Amino acid sequence: MNTRQQFTSDNYAGMCPEAWQAMMQANVGSLIPYGEDEWTSRAADAFRALFEKECEVFFVFNGTAANSLALAALCQSYNSVICSSYAHVETDECGAPEFFSNGSKLLVARTESAKLTEQDVRLLSTCRSDIHYPKPRAVTITQPTETGELYSLSEIRTLAQTCRELGLYLHMDGSRFANACAALGCTPADMTWRAGVDVLCFGGTKNGMAVSEAVLFFDRALADGFDYRCKQAGQLASKMRFLSAPWVGMLESGAWLRNARHANTCARRLAEQVVGQPGVSLMFPVQANGVFIHAQPAVLERLRACGWRFYTFIGGGARFMFAWDADMAEVDRLAADIKACAGAA
Amino acid sequence: MNTRQQFTSDNYAGMCPEAWQAMMQANVGSLIPYGEDEWTSRAADAFRALFEKECEVFFVFNGTAANSLALAALCQSYNSVICSSYAHVETDECGAPEFFSNGSKLLVARTESAKLTEQDVRLLSTCRSDIHYPKPRAVTITQPTETGELYSLSEIRTLAQTCRELGLYLHMDGSRFANACAALGCTPADMTWRAGVDVLCFGGTKNGMAVSEAVLFFDRALADGFDYRCKQAGQLASKMRFLSAPWVGMLESGAWLRNARHANTCARRLAEQVVGQPGVSLMFPVQANGVFIHAQPAVLERLRACGWRFYTFIGGGARFMFAWDADMAEVDRLAADIKACAGAA
Amino acid sequence: MNTRQQFTSDNYAGMCPEAWQAMMQANVGSLIPYGEDEWTSRAADAFRALFEKECEVFFVFNGTAANSLALAALCQSYNSVICSSYAHVETDECGAPEFFSNGSKLLVARTESAKLTEQDVRLLSTCRSDIHYPKPRAVTITQPTETGELYSLSEIRTLAQTCRELGLYLHMDGSRFANACAALGCTPADMTWRAGVDVLCFGGTKNGMAVSEAVLFFDRALADGFDYRCKQAGQLASKMRFLSAPWVGMLESGAWLRNARHANTCARRLAEQVVGQPGVSLMFPVQANGVFIHAQPAVLERLRACGWRFYTFIGGGARFMFAWDADMAEVDRLAADIKACAGAA
Amino acid sequence: MNTRQQFTSDNYAGMCPEAWQAMMQANVGSLIPYGEDEWTSRAADAFRALFEKECEVFFVFNGTAANSLALAALCQSYNSVICSSYAHVETDECGAPEFFSNGSKLLVARTESAKLTEQDVRLLSTCRSDIHYPKPRAVTITQPTETGELYSLSEIRTLAQTCRELGLYLHMDGSRFANACAALGCTPADMTWRAGVDVLCFGGTKNGMAVSEAVLFFDRALADGFDYRCKQAGQLASKMRFLSAPWVGMLESGAWLRNARHANTCARRLAEQVVGQPGVSLMFPVQANGVFIHAQPAVLERLRACGWRFYTFIGGGARFMFAWDADMAEVDRLAADIKACAGAA
Repeated sequence: MNTRQQFTSDNYAGMCPEAWQAMMQANVGSLIPYGEDEWTSRAADAFRALFEKECEVFFVFNGTAANSLALAALCQSYNSVICSSYAHVETDECGAPEFFSNGSKLLVARTESAKLTEQDVRLLSTCRSDIHYPKPRAVTITQPTETGELYSLSEIRTLAQTCRELGLYLHMDGSRFANACAALGCTPADMTWRAGVDVLCFGGTKNGMAVSEAVLFFDRALADGFDYRCKQAGQLASKMRFLSAPWVGMLESGAWLRNARHANTCARRLAEQVVGQPGVSLMFPVQANGVFIHAQPAVLERLRACGWRFYTFIGGGARFMFAWDADMAEVDRLAADIKACAGAA
Repeated sequence: MNTRQQFTSDNYAGMCPEAWQAMMQANVGSLIPYGEDEWTSRAADAFRALFEKECEVFFVFNGTAANSLALAALCQSYNSVICSSYAHVETDECGAPEFFSNGSKLLVARTESAKLTEQDVRLLSTCRSDIHYPKPRAVTITQPTETGELYSLSEIRTLAQTCRELGLYLHMDGSRFANACAALGCTPADMTWRAGVDVLCFGGTKNGMAVSEAVLFFDRALADGFDYRCKQAGQLASKMRFLSAPWVGMLESGAWLRNARHANTCARRLAEQVVGQPGVSLMFPVQANGVFIHAQPAVLERLRACGWRFYTFIGGGARFMFAWDADMAEVDRLAADIKACAGAA
Repeated sequence: MNTRQQFTSDNYAGMCPEAWQAMMQANVGSLIPYGEDEWTSRAADAFRALFEKECEVFFVFNGTAANSLALAALCQSYNSVICSSYAHVETDECGAPEFFSNGSKLLVARTESAKLTEQDVRLLSTCRSDIHYPKPRAVTITQPTETGELYSLSEIRTLAQTCRELGLYLHMDGSRFANACAALGCTPADMTWRAGVDVLCFGGTKNGMAVSEAVLFFDRALADGFDYRCKQAGQLASKMRFLSAPWVGMLESGAWLRNARHANTCARRLAEQVVGQPGVSLMFPVQANGVFIHAQPAVLERLRACGWRFYTFIGGGARFMFAWDADMAEVDRLAADIKACAGAA
Repeated sequence: MNTRQQFTSDNYAGMCPEAWQAMMQANVGSLIPYGEDEWTSRAADAFRALFEKECEVFFVFNGTAANSLALAALCQSYNSVICSSYAHVETDECGAPEFFSNGSKLLVARTESAKLTEQDVRLLSTCRSDIHYPKPRAVTITQPTETGELYSLSEIRTLAQTCRELGLYLHMDGSRFANACAALGCTPADMTWRAGVDVLCFGGTKNGMAVSEAVLFFDRALADGFDYRCKQAGQLASKMRFLSAPWVGMLESGAWLRNARHANTCARRLAEQVVGQPGVSLMFPVQANGVFIHAQPAVLERLRACGWRFYTFIGGGARFMFAWDADMAEVDRLAADIKACAGAA
């Protein structure tokens, strides 16, 4: 099987040792299913400790479900959710948010940025108040964004205040939440509930796990019935320990943050080597673990011919995403190949 | 943590070595996500070989989703699904089939048995033909049943012929499918498509895995769009190898059948020791890996006082389910405790 | 076209003069659509006056939608609704409640009566508390029942107290609500909010209108967002006056009660003439506008041969339902035919 | 009540005499409900005659339901529907299409026109083919558009051919279909199935009726189960004659076309009087029964002060829509007021 490392996506990587180790330890003996086991309560407690908050914690299988279920919990079918035009829930979930919520519509900001602004939220939530327009009920932001950018704490706070003022909930799609924490150097609490975030989906898969995402409700009342919601939607694991134990490994060992730091470092390292090179430019500031490179189609073709796989779905640029297992030498090789391919133009 | 073995359910067990080993092997290097990797195609091929059929194979996270998605693929929202009153989809899925299908109603046979008969199907599908009654479109049977009983091949064939005649699809909930194969000693093909089953949900979790069920469409046309359906419903794993590789381990090594045989043996062993004892009786024939014991409440109380955990949700009897990891000595100890508790009456 | 009067159902009748007259008056000039017109506020006020309560009032197109939307407003998808096995929402709505609520399951009391009892509610709402069982959230009763029987005020109060104690809402399917008021001789308020009913669907169609049902929320907080819910579900009429003006005609003139009294009188008149006749018997006490007659199949066949159309879907008996337009002479003719057909045996 | 005629929308009008008269004739005697009556078959036959086609015809309550149910019949939940950014299903249905289809996403063309082009369809249906993008299955066009413009027969044919080539169904939202027929002077058949339209929603409300829209499936196979779909979704009228008889009146008398012609004439008359006036301009070509006028905010304010009500939700311009009952003298008065208000600047 293919062992050449690729940076096509941060879900090309396997499980990191800390997650694996904990899962191995959990694979012992008879345990109560459906999350009533000790691994699961230990994982939930680890989240509460990390976030310095008695929040409600749920483990589901993947990010599609985590975000869609969280939004469904905030909305009725006739409500709507404000998001950026880059939002993964809008562009890459095959209608999952609408499916889980039975019809809640996404209101997409028509701005050029992946970062939603206070103005976007105000405009979309106040432009209409008639019954033919689905009543706005939540705002979702992706941190870091799909373009590898970050909301500052201050920007999150402003959005949260705007939400509060307008009667909207603030949801954070944190499929790469750890990378944002590593990059901003702030605590998870500062980036979420202290800033006004109501619900967070904390991504485990891209952080080094196999199949788990955590949904955290900082306002516990919002979690009412969420256990039933997960069950009905096919997101309650019977052998829950295999979803929760890896979180124990990740959080108790600090791997969640180490993995993210490493990935971010690789992204910066690639960016630093290619920036300023003739024929290539960065499409977005490199603030987390992704690098988007603009270059002529011929350059990208040559890069593909070198064996590199990458997506170009955002603006035609080449996207590279780094995970916990990125090999620095391979990053450097990629940088060298980019320079060579661009220089050959 | 609790290490005393319990037979409360067959999902108290962990992963069996063969599944674990394959998952470990798969945890290497960069792999294409969303099922485009080699482990996933190898697992799908292993199913096709085992079932001697070029069927369509999908891997989802759990049984709730597997059954609900399969039924949703067979039905429109205004259709209905015929099932037994013991059917897990009716009694223990918190409305999941209705949720995934957007309203398909379950038509529940009002007979006393967990095994659906030709007469049940005929009655429920022909008693009404007006527009106020959701149009029957599928029949679902659980093999083995929730009471640990088996449909014979001949019974399945009769049901399938009835379905065909009435324009209904036949779905098999095989959350313990391996136990049925082990018990009947027939091939998977004989028990499914050769008998007329259209779609099978083959349970991995109770067979010794962590979080995967396989959905097999023997009529490939029925699988049209099922990949999109899984994606939208939050059932497409990005790191699919962690769902598929364990199947490779299970199927290629034969563990799927060994595990099931062992579990069935344990059930028979318990049954043989308690049958005929005063104060206890078997509620259902012991044909797979479950034993249901009828006894006075005081007997069950004493049994609980001995440290045994069990459910009594079916007819007030004590249910014991055996998994791949059941320890014969513990089974014997349970048998002895049952005899002692019953004898003390 | 067929003008021979039939008592097959109370929806065989047209519009009564009072409803028609008001609709004709409303068919004048330009009016604001979507319920912002004066006819609609006048109709809503008429309901508030009749019910002596500042309730929220909505007009939708038919009973399927009224009941399904009301239940969807009370439940999340993972909730369940307790009902009798005769409940129209269970037997004759083609899965509509599940469709509108995105999966809320109906928990059907397995008793022989169309009238739900306190014990039914307690059993179904407390028999299980695990997450695999959809969490009970509402109780629905039909007044009068599908068998033409009535809940007494005391029975309703007892059910309502039980609901309150168990954290359940009480919904009343009043597709023939006027007939219940006429029969019990009580005020609409006494039969609903004063007795503890939270939401009522008041049927207009069977009371003498064309296409409108009213949904009344006595606890206004429960109506939050219901206007959006109606809109999204295709139940907001643009030319709302044609739904609301007939209500003005019905309520302000007292026709709603007169129509119901007449229908009830016809039912009693039929019942009195056939009761005690050899070969026929009443299946249920005749308390509203329906009569269910038990007789040998041969008797029913002869009755059909006389030109009478009727359903036998409840227990094989002949159902006759009377509307505002029932002609006494025809009722007597039906009675005579029944006696003759039974006597011929 | 307000009797001053307004041209705010074409649903401010009541029922036209021909519809009313037929409804009055239908309000006689006992009739079989749920569409099994003679008025309903006569109305369906009138549609078949008008469209010169043995199509399947259904009557539902309003346009929200007609369009949403038709699209739900063409799509599975994971499919998507291509539409213009002006499409009523996207902008003014509060998420109804997503609700009825359980999540089918609308793919909105980002062009400036209300008229969808072949290029729009190609782009949106072929830009992606991955599983994270809901699979395109239908195209919906509004004829006339929400801006009062028309697709020519040739444009419809081109779109239909493109749809066929790409495996997409073509749905026509004809809430003002009669106005399009009147304007283009073509037969209903030419504008629909002969041009390649698969399903049409023919609007009755805006054409002079009270509460009915017709859904026509030209390919009868596509209508399979649609009767059940309507029932489950609360769109099956029990006293169907009140929805169908008005159609008999409209179609058999030719009122459907006369009404539309009159409305179109009024629109042209207004347009002709204001075009070329300083301070006002037409936003879109006036091709059906709507006129969109661009003017300074101060002009619109003065117009409102004159007592005229109008919407400005499309580009800030004033929208005027004419119905069957538009009074020419009032149209002229509106024209005079517009000129005066603009001239006063």
